[in-house]
Amino acid sequence: MSQGFLALILAAGKGTRFKSDRIKVLHPLLGKSMLQLVVDSVLRLKPQKVYVVVGYQKDEIRKEVQSDKVALVHQKEQLGTAHAVMAASSVLKKDINSDVLIINADLPLVRPQTLKPLLTLHRNQRNSLTFLSAELENPTGFGRIIRSDGKIRVIEEKDASPSVKKIKEVNTGVYLFRVRDLLASLPKVSNQNKKREYYLTDVTGIMAQEGKKISSYKTPNTGEFVGVNSRYELAQAIEVLRERKIRDLTEKGVTVLDPKTTWIDLDVKIGLDTVIYPSVVIEGRSVIGRECRLYPFTHIRDSRLGSGVEILGSTMIENSVIENEARVGPFSRLRPDSIIRKKAKVGNFVEMKNTDLGRKSKAMHLSYLGDTEVKGEVNVGAGTITCNYDGKKKYKTYIDEGAFIGSGTELIAPVKIGKKAYIGAGSTITKDVSPEALAVSRSKQVEKKNWSRRNRKK
Amino acid sequence: MSQGFLALILAAGKGTRFKSDRIKVLHPLLGKSMLQLVVDSVLRLKPQKVYVVVGYQKDEIRKEVQSDKVALVHQKEQLGTAHAVMAASSVLKKDINSDVLIINADLPLVRPQTLKPLLTLHRNQRNSLTFLSAELENPTGFGRIIRSDGKIRVIEEKDASPSVKKIKEVNTGVYLFRVRDLLASLPKVSNQNKKREYYLTDVTGIMAQEGKKISSYKTPNTGEFVGVNSRYELAQAIEVLRERKIRDLTEKGVTVLDPKTTWIDLDVKIGLDTVIYPSVVIEGRSVIGRECRLYPFTHIRDSRLGSGVEILGSTMIENSVIENEARVGPFSRLRPDSIIRKKAKVGNFVEMKNTDLGRKSKAMHLSYLGDTEVKGEVNVGAGTITCNYDGKKKYKTYIDEGAFIGSGTELIAPVKIGKKAYIGAGSTITKDVSPEALAVSRSKQVEKKNWSRRNRKK
Amino acid sequence: MSQGFLALILAAGKGTRFKSDRIKVLHPLLGKSMLQLVVDSVLRLKPQKVYVVVGYQKDEIRKEVQSDKVALVHQKEQLGTAHAVMAASSVLKKDINSDVLIINADLPLVRPQTLKPLLTLHRNQRNSLTFLSAELENPTGFGRIIRSDGKIRVIEEKDASPSVKKIKEVNTGVYLFRVRDLLASLPKVSNQNKKREYYLTDVTGIMAQEGKKISSYKTPNTGEFVGVNSRYELAQAIEVLRERKIRDLTEKGVTVLDPKTTWIDLDVKIGLDTVIYPSVVIEGRSVIGRECRLYPFTHIRDSRLGSGVEILGSTMIENSVIENEARVGPFSRLRPDSIIRKKAKVGNFVEMKNTDLGRKSKAMHLSYLGDTEVKGEVNVGAGTITCNYDGKKKYKTYIDEGAFIGSGTELIAPVKIGKKAYIGAGSTITKDVSPEALAVSRSKQVEKKNWSRRNRKK
Repeated sequence: MSQGFLALILAAGKGTRFKSDRIKVLHPLLGKSMLQLVVDSVLRLKPQKVYVVVGYQKDEIRKEVQSDKVALVHQKEQLGTAHAVMAASSVLKKDINSDVLIINADLPLVRPQTLKPLLTLHRNQRNSLTFLSAELENPTGFGRIIRSDGKIRVIEEKDASPSVKKIKEVNTGVYLFRVRDLLASLPKVSNQNKKREYYLTDVTGIMAQEGKKISSYKTPNTGEFVGVNSRYELAQAIEVLRERKIRDLTEKGVTVLDPKTTWIDLDVKIGLDTVIYPSVVIEGRSVIGRECRLYPFTHIRDSRLGSGVEILGSTMIENSVIENEARVGPFSRLRPDSIIRKKAKVGNFVEMKNTDLGRKSKAMHLSYLGDTEVKGEVNVGAGTITCNYDGKKKYKTYIDEGAFIGSGTELIAPVKIGKKAYIGAGSTITKDVSPEALAVSRSKQVEKKNWSRRNRKK
Repeated sequence: MSQGFLALILAAGKGTRFKSDRIKVLHPLLGKSMLQLVVDSVLRLKPQKVYVVVGYQKDEIRKEVQSDKVALVHQKEQLGTAHAVMAASSVLKKDINSDVLIINADLPLVRPQTLKPLLTLHRNQRNSLTFLSAELENPTGFGRIIRSDGKIRVIEEKDASPSVKKIKEVNTGVYLFRVRDLLASLPKVSNQNKKREYYLTDVTGIMAQEGKKISSYKTPNTGEFVGVNSRYELAQAIEVLRERKIRDLTEKGVTVLDPKTTWIDLDVKIGLDTVIYPSVVIEGRSVIGRECRLYPFTHIRDSRLGSGVEILGSTMIENSVIENEARVGPFSRLRPDSIIRKKAKVGNFVEMKNTDLGRKSKAMHLSYLGDTEVKGEVNVGAGTITCNYDGKKKYKTYIDEGAFIGSGTELIAPVKIGKKAYIGAGSTITKDVSPEALAVSRSKQVEKKNWSRRNRKK
Repeated sequence: MSQGFLALILAAGKGTRFKSDRIKVLHPLLGKSMLQLVVDSVLRLKPQKVYVVVGYQKDEIRKEVQSDKVALVHQKEQLGTAHAVMAASSVLKKDINSDVLIINADLPLVRPQTLKPLLTLHRNQRNSLTFLSAELENPTGFGRIIRSDGKIRVIEEKDASPSVKKIKEVNTGVYLFRVRDLLASLPKVSNQNKKREYYLTDVTGIMAQEGKKISSYKTPNTGEFVGVNSRYELAQAIEVLRERKIRDLTEKGVTVLDPKTTWIDLDVKIGLDTVIYPSVVIEGRSVIGRECRLYPFTHIRDSRLGSGVEILGSTMIENSVIENEARVGPFSRLRPDSIIRKKAKVGNFVEMKNTDLGRKSKAMHLSYLGDTEVKGEVNVGAGTITCNYDGKKKYKTYIDEGAFIGSGTELIAPVKIGKKAYIGAGSTITKDVSPEALAVSRSKQVEKKNWSRRNRKK
């Protein structure tokens, strides 16, 4: 037995109970597909190589698992778990002296620390086969484990006598085989059963008859072996991962005030003493710094926040960067490629897209800045709109340091506002403004006396 | 015994523990009043006729249960459950050979499939009375069921010996009577008790003494017989219905990522492969198509969404229609009678009211369109406002195909913008614009050099 | 034994498992720090005086507990619970004939009604020491209670035999001592143990040996004695308080549709028949009147709402007042010091700051009103912006009764709009407007025919 091992992940099923165009194992849980979660867990055990047996949507699966260590094996027809392993026999053969861990791809809750003891036991005992068993409150549907004379057997539910059915230790379907012994026994599996399928569990019996050394490791982490077969079970599995993730964050010094209403994807990182209010959603590969405060109804995706950042709630941030001590929200929307520099402020009903808001600059009310570069200490007044699109192309706006944009201003791009320039409220700016100049485009205010009396009924 | 049956729903109580001006059974659960839920369950069993015994707020109740099959019976005083049935005796008499199902209106969790076996048993056994029993973990407060010599008795909590109190099978208060036998026994019920009320449970004893055939059906669905007596119990009952609804949706192929924070009214319909993010509220008779995505903090009421629609979060949609592949949000608000046509887009901080946004048209930023008809492929710039109200009346705006409305434009209704017309940014449009014309109302931009140095301190 | 008693709250620990710059007992739960919650519970028992033993962040603690009855005692080093009590011995000595209740500051769930019977028992039995015990499902880690010969002993986990370990009655760490006896025994406590600390539990043994009268009160409210030692446990404690608060509100006649997603701080008050939709957050000292409706994704902080107020969702209100029958939202933001008068309406994408919106006045769309006084029955059109800041100072805007502000108007403060004046849409108003006058600043609309054909490609 070499120290290395292979892994074989069975992902060829369609998952019809999902009633989805997408195969079951590609459905995501907190930002990762079910399959990816199993691949990740297995990779953390450092196998030599991981094979994924696929049936449908091969291209989508390939996109999901992009690792040098992972290769796909195609199973043309789905004729049972043993048949899936047969499909991989030619690649397994290449490491005939190795071991192979076999696991279903619909077990997204299994953690590496749960699989690890199985490997250790298998190697220490020099077994032909070691499988993972668990003691379940409700073992219905699982194969039961019977131990006698130092031997171990699995009896399937359908073959179980009433007394066997009472046994609570079950076969979880996670196996560690010596490759040589597996490949020797595999051809002997028959499909003489109701569904005309080849079952991997039958290998257990065949090996036992042949006097191979079989053992099992009983895991205490029974909750991880719940197969996800429907969208309701998917939601339940997500719930387990969600709680795990939040617990992990709190243990690292993050305050999550209301774990039940907080949704944080698995890859999100959050710094010490950051406080997360109820009803916050953080997705993707977001990184949040230390001592931030995220207020309710905030939605962040694939963004980086520095330290001491405040997100004042009802705010949506996507693919953007927010530097230290900046403040955004409430009711702000940062679209991709926006940068909010140190101590800058974005206020309510403000949208930014591909915009760089300089240090200590402010855009506090009812504005749209698109394709705009704003230098430091600029004040963007309420109702400022960059007209970056003329129906054909997009243009850039540039606002230099210390400029003051009066409220209700349209900046028709391409346009440059000079350093410390001042734009009068209500202006439509079509030409560049010189540094320190006042620019204004405004009609005279005229008054018609007593107009209301004549014209308004109410 | 005829095949048909009557139903009598007891809804005359006020529900003082609710501390509400509205009677208890009119409080809603996921879009339906408590009473309506019981009426719905009963109607699905196809009774000949349903009578609802009412005491308070008769008019409101009538509005709730508008079905030809349902009639109200008034109980002037509330003197107990048997008294409530007496109030209905004259209408019951009309179907003297029928059976009558009697159920309290505060059991909103009871499903038709739970009541069905009661009917079947009653008919097969040709009973005078069959009641629904259940085995409760904590039977305190309920009448206990005693079976001896093939007979059955109910002993009320107050009359129960310690050994009887240990019995866990209880009377749920749901009865199926032969009408003739019920009406014969009813006048014998006495109010010689502490509260001076007439209790329907006493009929059980009377019938037993008279040798009538009494039986019971023990339901396994014990969770459905929790009377809702306080607002806290109301919230708990809502929780059960909410989970039932979401489970049902997931089984039909909808992905609900976070069932705990998702609120979907009972009448809402949702298509295959639609994904619902955390913290989404969908109310009323909304219909959502296939492959839609509803992002967090979305609130939809009484609206129809086609297929492939994206609602980008923090969006409120009421009484509107969104066609296939349209995209709305984030931070959009669609007020009643808005239509978003195929592939049209509504963006952030955009409000529409009674507005029809044409195919592939866009209104992406900070706009208000009220009483407006927008044809296809129109671009409505940021900060566009239809001035549809002059303080007295509301007027219409019409924007023809392919028009481009520059940013920061006010359209003073009534006004028509012609086909492919172009409105310069920052304009106030008071007159109709010809097709293909450029319209602009803008003052010259003037500049005062070095103004900042003289006028700005900072 | 006098009728009065002292209380000693042990708050000197840092709470390293919190991994926070802030000490553990200053972390808030629903608007109150952990320490404040314990102080509040103790104060409701009406002690003569409360001493809080502090170690770190004394100033922050002093700010938290500002009551005449509460004094701080400094413990320079943290050498165990008995050592903390020694630090208070000089102040305790002043009331040598009194009793003293000793409790840890990390028990935020303990209610006064749970502590009350301890006091009563202690006084009735004239004990030297009465401690609070509880029967726990999982007693691991706690000292076990042994009763024999009418005597009572505490055996610490580390000294417990296997049979003692099976005892489920534990010492909760809440004590009531006769001060004289406590101070006599305290110097005898030794630190000859692994951690070299002085443990208060040792006093129990010392007193027992000296024949002092010791008794215990076994509380049924076991859930309240969970020490909060990590942020995850903090979240769990918050969850208990949150549910308690919501249950209390529902019992007082408030409808909370979805308790799981509703967050209401402990000090918030809410009136009869108010309905709270899912995903609402109400913080601080907010007061909500009767028959209000708060729709989803609303966040209210330190504000007062009258009766019949509607908050239409996705709205943020801070430090403001909303009078009866007013309507705010959706997507409104009220910043501090705003007043919305009776029947006034604030609509979507509207921000107010330090603004008084008069009776029946409306600001319905895309507006910013800052430092503004609006009298009654004013219509503030869509896109109205008060330009209250010129880059140096803030100025006031005043809009008199019945005025009509056309859409897309900038009001450049300081400015006054007269009674019933009418501002034409798209105006920039720089000068005061006379009552009943029409004011407008607008350029002529000009049209270039067939411009699109020549200039637009698409």
